[in-house]
Amino acid sequence: MLPQFRVSQEEAIQVQGDDLKATVAGIFEKMGVPESDAEVGADALVLADLRGVDSHGVSNMLRSYVNGYTSGQINPRPDISIVRETPATASMDSDRGLGTITTPKAMQLAIRKASEVGVGMVTIGNARHLGMASYHAMLALEHDMIGVCMTSCPPRTLPTFGAEPRLGTNPIAIAVPAKNDHPFVFDAATSSVAQNKIEIARRLGAKLEPGWLATEDGVPIMEEVDVPNVYHLLPMGATRELGSHKGYGLSCVVDILAGVLTGFGYGAVPGRPNFGHYVAAYNIAGFDDPDHFKENMDEWLEMMKSTKPAPGHDRVMVAGQPEAEMEAIRRRDGVPLHPEVVDYIRDTCGELSVECRF
Amino acid sequence: MLPQFRVSQEEAIQVQGDDLKATVAGIFEKMGVPESDAEVGADALVLADLRGVDSHGVSNMLRSYVNGYTSGQINPRPDISIVRETPATASMDSDRGLGTITTPKAMQLAIRKASEVGVGMVTIGNARHLGMASYHAMLALEHDMIGVCMTSCPPRTLPTFGAEPRLGTNPIAIAVPAKNDHPFVFDAATSSVAQNKIEIARRLGAKLEPGWLATEDGVPIMEEVDVPNVYHLLPMGATRELGSHKGYGLSCVVDILAGVLTGFGYGAVPGRPNFGHYVAAYNIAGFDDPDHFKENMDEWLEMMKSTKPAPGHDRVMVAGQPEAEMEAIRRRDGVPLHPEVVDYIRDTCGELSVECRF
Repeated sequence: MLPQFRVSQEEAIQVQGDDLKATVAGIFEKMGVPESDAEVGADALVLADLRGVDSHGVSNMLRSYVNGYTSGQINPRPDISIVRETPATASMDSDRGLGTITTPKAMQLAIRKASEVGVGMVTIGNARHLGMASYHAMLALEHDMIGVCMTSCPPRTLPTFGAEPRLGTNPIAIAVPAKNDHPFVFDAATSSVAQNKIEIARRLGAKLEPGWLATEDGVPIMEEVDVPNVYHLLPMGATRELGSHKGYGLSCVVDILAGVLTGFGYGAVPGRPNFGHYVAAYNIAGFDDPDHFKENMDEWLEMMKSTKPAPGHDRVMVAGQPEAEMEAIRRRDGVPLHPEVVDYIRDTCGELSVECRF
Repeated sequence: MLPQFRVSQEEAIQVQGDDLKATVAGIFEKMGVPESDAEVGADALVLADLRGVDSHGVSNMLRSYVNGYTSGQINPRPDISIVRETPATASMDSDRGLGTITTPKAMQLAIRKASEVGVGMVTIGNARHLGMASYHAMLALEHDMIGVCMTSCPPRTLPTFGAEPRLGTNPIAIAVPAKNDHPFVFDAATSSVAQNKIEIARRLGAKLEPGWLATEDGVPIMEEVDVPNVYHLLPMGATRELGSHKGYGLSCVVDILAGVLTGFGYGAVPGRPNFGHYVAAYNIAGFDDPDHFKENMDEWLEMMKSTKPAPGHDRVMVAGQPEAEMEAIRRRDGVPLHPEVVDYIRDTCGELSVECRF
């Protein structure tokens, strides 16, 4: 996605996914997380790294999760409850559980409902950070279902024409199974760029692209710059002329479905505990024969990928393809981690008496 | 939305919405459309005009609908059938019916399912043009439901880095009720701009904004230009640097849900009859107390609208607000129509022996 933000090949330390996962699971357990939940949390973080979504992997998120558990902001053993329920819907109180770990439980509930009545849709309030949204959406794939996941985050993004952040980066993820090809997996912030990517850029000293940020008083920055000390994120589209009202509107949709609809408040509500999430599963068998659909998806993916490229480009890709290609490489070669990240994990393992597998 | 594209105040002929609707319904009936269906079609077109969505109103769409009926492309009396059904889902064959008229029937089915099991989701294959997507989404509002509508259109939009159109303008509409405030109504093409708006610009001689179109070989046009004779639409975001992979990905989502999932094919499939549609209704009572939710929506809308504006701007708006404000004005003053449009309607009424009310 943003190769210039990745750790350089020379300084990277390659760590096999299984070693990274076992180590991270050990750290989660020392935070008081039950073993099976620790497995899920580690699986989600490491899958982000394997798929090249470094912004939501171990290097960028583990420290904040450890801090959240240590400070008591995140509850390691949440008592998750269902607040409301119908055959196709539910709203859950996740009792300050980490979204990375609690959202798969909500998705399993959505999948069960979709297998029973065709669609399952679950909101999760009183929640904490989601992790990579597509991790949860992709849980639907093996059931021949389309998976959806969104999260309403604390405000960092300006409305179009606004000078104060009112919306989070509010990502939308949708995963669709194919037959022989990789699944279609869309996962993107409705802000011009994910907050995590800005901080990775700052750490690596990379320049920002025009249209990613606004100044403190809300003016879109339309040239390449270093990461400013004070800034706001812009909605997808950057300026009104380039369509930022669409990114802003979609961010609002996420804030409503994953925020207001939880009943626990939205991104910018004063005193709101933190995050809200939304998952859905659509049973393909409720619309079409699943084999027919998946064959059509293979054909559709091939149609998209065989598009004649514009001058200066090699090929046209489709959502989920770069991540599938990266996953194949990193499952073989390991995940490249910055030495500082490796030091942090080794130090943390030392402090917590967890075996570091690398 | 795009006031520079509207007919100028001096040359406009103001027509009251009810007069326009009765006249258009009369024309639909002469096309062989049953009376109650003709009412729905006219209501959808005129509501677009009243809300300022001129691109999907009478002036821009009626001629194409009349031509479609006359040529036999659109079936005035379709035998709509349900192909598959579960408690929360259905897929429909709309038998070449005009989407503007058949989609409300699909939405009523979705609403019934949502009232029974919490969510209703219906795909519509073998379909024709949808009209304004938010018309169908808004049907859910009076039921205290969130309405969703998408349509997979014939290819006009390039994938990111592509030189051949593979996707339609593929709009997404979502309507959410509030208590005392106007509803939240998002309705936007996932292309950088709706195809209809380009043709309105051509008719009015307006300049295009940078980032709206690509040249014939797929290079984004990043300066102000007249409408070229040959062009392709860009996905929302315009260039990869500005996030066009997000607009492209969302357009793919629409092509999958409103195209592949119908079982009747997608936008770019060879020999595909035409359009595919998707509607959904989410029953708010399946997640939260509807009054609590709608009070929170009032608060949320006010929070968004009270955002401090950036330099050079008066206020921050929220999706559905400009349309609600325009609707109040046009319900009072009438819809401003270009004299050529009025001539076309009067001529058509004359040919068909329909009473023109203006």
